Amino acid sequence: MLIVQKYGGSSVADGSRIRNVAGIIAENYSCGHDMVVVLSAQGDTTDELLEKAAELNPSPSRRELDMLLATGEQQSIALMAMCLESMGLPAVSLTGWQAGVRTNAEYGVARIRRVDTERLRRELDKKRIVLVAGFQGVNKFDDYTTLGRGGSDTTAVALAAALHADRCQIFTDVEGVYTADPRKVPGARKLDEITYDEMLELASMGAQVLMNRSVQMAKRYGVELEVLSSLVRAPGTKVKEVTRTMEEMKITGIAKDENVARLTVAGVADKPGVAFRLLNTVAKAGVDVDMIIQANGREDTNDISFVVAQDHAAMAYDALMARQSAIGFDHISVDRDIAKVSVVGAGMMSSSSIAAVVFEAFNDEHINIQMINTSEIKISCVIDAASADRAVKAIHRKFFEV
Amino acid sequence: MLIVQKYGGSSVADGSRIRNVAGIIAENYSCGHDMVVVLSAQGDTTDELLEKAAELNPSPSRRELDMLLATGEQQSIALMAMCLESMGLPAVSLTGWQAGVRTNAEYGVARIRRVDTERLRRELDKKRIVLVAGFQGVNKFDDYTTLGRGGSDTTAVALAAALHADRCQIFTDVEGVYTADPRKVPGARKLDEITYDEMLELASMGAQVLMNRSVQMAKRYGVELEVLSSLVRAPGTKVKEVTRTMEEMKITGIAKDENVARLTVAGVADKPGVAFRLLNTVAKAGVDVDMIIQANGREDTNDISFVVAQDHAAMAYDALMARQSAIGFDHISVDRDIAKVSVVGAGMMSSSSIAAVVFEAFNDEHINIQMINTSEIKISCVIDAASADRAVKAIHRKFFEV
Repeated sequence: MLIVQKYGGSSVADGSRIRNVAGIIAENYSCGHDMVVVLSAQGDTTDELLEKAAELNPSPSRRELDMLLATGEQQSIALMAMCLESMGLPAVSLTGWQAGVRTNAEYGVARIRRVDTERLRRELDKKRIVLVAGFQGVNKFDDYTTLGRGGSDTTAVALAAALHADRCQIFTDVEGVYTADPRKVPGARKLDEITYDEMLELASMGAQVLMNRSVQMAKRYGVELEVLSSLVRAPGTKVKEVTRTMEEMKITGIAKDENVARLTVAGVADKPGVAFRLLNTVAKAGVDVDMIIQANGREDTNDISFVVAQDHAAMAYDALMARQSAIGFDHISVDRDIAKVSVVGAGMMSSSSIAAVVFEAFNDEHINIQMINTSEIKISCVIDAASADRAVKAIHRKFFEV
Repeated sequence: MLIVQKYGGSSVADGSRIRNVAGIIAENYSCGHDMVVVLSAQGDTTDELLEKAAELNPSPSRRELDMLLATGEQQSIALMAMCLESMGLPAVSLTGWQAGVRTNAEYGVARIRRVDTERLRRELDKKRIVLVAGFQGVNKFDDYTTLGRGGSDTTAVALAAALHADRCQIFTDVEGVYTADPRKVPGARKLDEITYDEMLELASMGAQVLMNRSVQMAKRYGVELEVLSSLVRAPGTKVKEVTRTMEEMKITGIAKDENVARLTVAGVADKPGVAFRLLNTVAKAGVDVDMIIQANGREDTNDISFVVAQDHAAMAYDALMARQSAIGFDHISVDRDIAKVSVVGAGMMSSSSIAAVVFEAFNDEHINIQMINTSEIKISCVIDAASADRAVKAIHRKFFEV
């Protein structure tokens, strides 16, 4: 069996954690499995590097930032290889470049174009444990790129797809996907299974177990994922196309996302094409937009509000201000003091009463809903940040603690 | 003018040092020069990485060690690029691989085979300041290799040769090459010029300003070097084929090398080919041998003593012990408590009295000479480590302080 595993930064944070992970890898390898292991940078390495960079340049070019950040994962794979070697196991570490991870040229948020598996296959044929630096690749200029947040998960899924792996296991510091954040909601339950679509909604809603792009890629290539803990030996949560429990459970989980900001562009001319130009400008800056609301402003103008990831708010703001006269608007206000609470479940499709229960929970707690967005399997509400935890607990009680 | 500069680890140790170096680079660039800048890893980075490795594996494979260590220089070039960017200067960082530095496959002590300058030329044509990670390259397997001690100097010289640079400046934390270590010998003088051969002897004798390999390469390709300080703006020492002062000064400098160990292989059969097999074994382990003495041992056997770099002593020992029965010897003893004091000068060729003066200095100080080695431009003596500083001072007085 060919197994692709991924271990996050906290799973390899120090020597003893690395030894622990090496133990899991060794166990699988000794069962005769072919092992490809994707690693993130150790613990706080990435933050430390960002700090060093910020000291020299508050807004460094993304190319150079990627050059800097790519070193974190490279250190992890080398250290893990050494640890496995010390256990008498054959291991070889490969950077994104060496592992054939080819990306587009969007530094910092690069997307994987293809994986040239020749070298990987060759190393597997030699029965070596192959350690691959996650989060990174090279573009057509042979320059280092990084894949952005959760990039190592994406690397793992891409490798699993390209190698037709039998399993793709994402090891993290939680035991799986829960109905809500177990640190905040004591009654939260671990799910045995979840569909790609549910996971996608949860991931994009701030349940930081798996990032969206990796789940999208897994869905697209039919890579069944398993999310599990590197510290507790227990089955995790399987992420797949169809789950057995879909019909039974109406909702799967509740997520809170505090990494959001609302930009309100005031005084936008009420003419065709203006909203498109505005949102296109934001999209071209590489910022994903979520929940758009248009409201009448003063004198034939509109106010357009939208939600973006908080760490992209400045980018969106800068991109819009740079084209202020071309787009035509008055000013932009940014509100970072909000949170998005989302209720997700594939079972929602067959039940219309979910929304009513969700709104009742908000009402019980006297929480004002600022924006609402729904899809077939999700309801999201933007509320003030201070009420978010209370909202999640209230909804969880309604659905899971009855 | 095309200038290749190299800055060592202490010159880029922290943010303020990086800014200082960026200032020197900017000054040269603003004069219209094409700039290629080779950087080492910051300060103690390499040692910290080695420590992390040692915690996981006391004897990691050299391939994985190179994978780990190569990250240090990669961080330096990215940080320097960001710093130059913040000054509004166009900069691009390139790893050894990207800069076309192709090496042989000897991990840890790799030798540069060639430099594919295409990418470098392309970046220079764009008038970018090109920052190259020193100390590293890739081999034919596309695996990362490092060049060993002083590797960044070698990178700089190789790039200067390949690009036919007009200047190759090695910036370090000393102001140039001195007649003796200025920290130990108060009367030591900075030299304006020194020949390749003199520098080679001094370098191999422990004057850690420039490593041997870089000087050898500079001599071979006729790259004129300048050694100067990144902290003090003053002319340094030029290293070239022929110097003006050769005829005037009989000796150029005095060096002390404490990184030496003497291995004595006892009970070697007195048969043809045995000494060759022995030394060949050491050479194949990648250890350079210096000063060989053969003395009669007991019962038709010889004792063969030789000097190696102290940090290679264990490698030489292991390599020999692994072939003990094949070579045929009794045992090996290792003495690390020695030092080598060397007197170097191209002017020595035309004067036979140098040796007499050197020996007189040892005699004055009652220091016993254990081994002697001479070349046309050098006299080296192995003495006990404790007397080394005293010996250097005594010789310096004889030649420079009269």
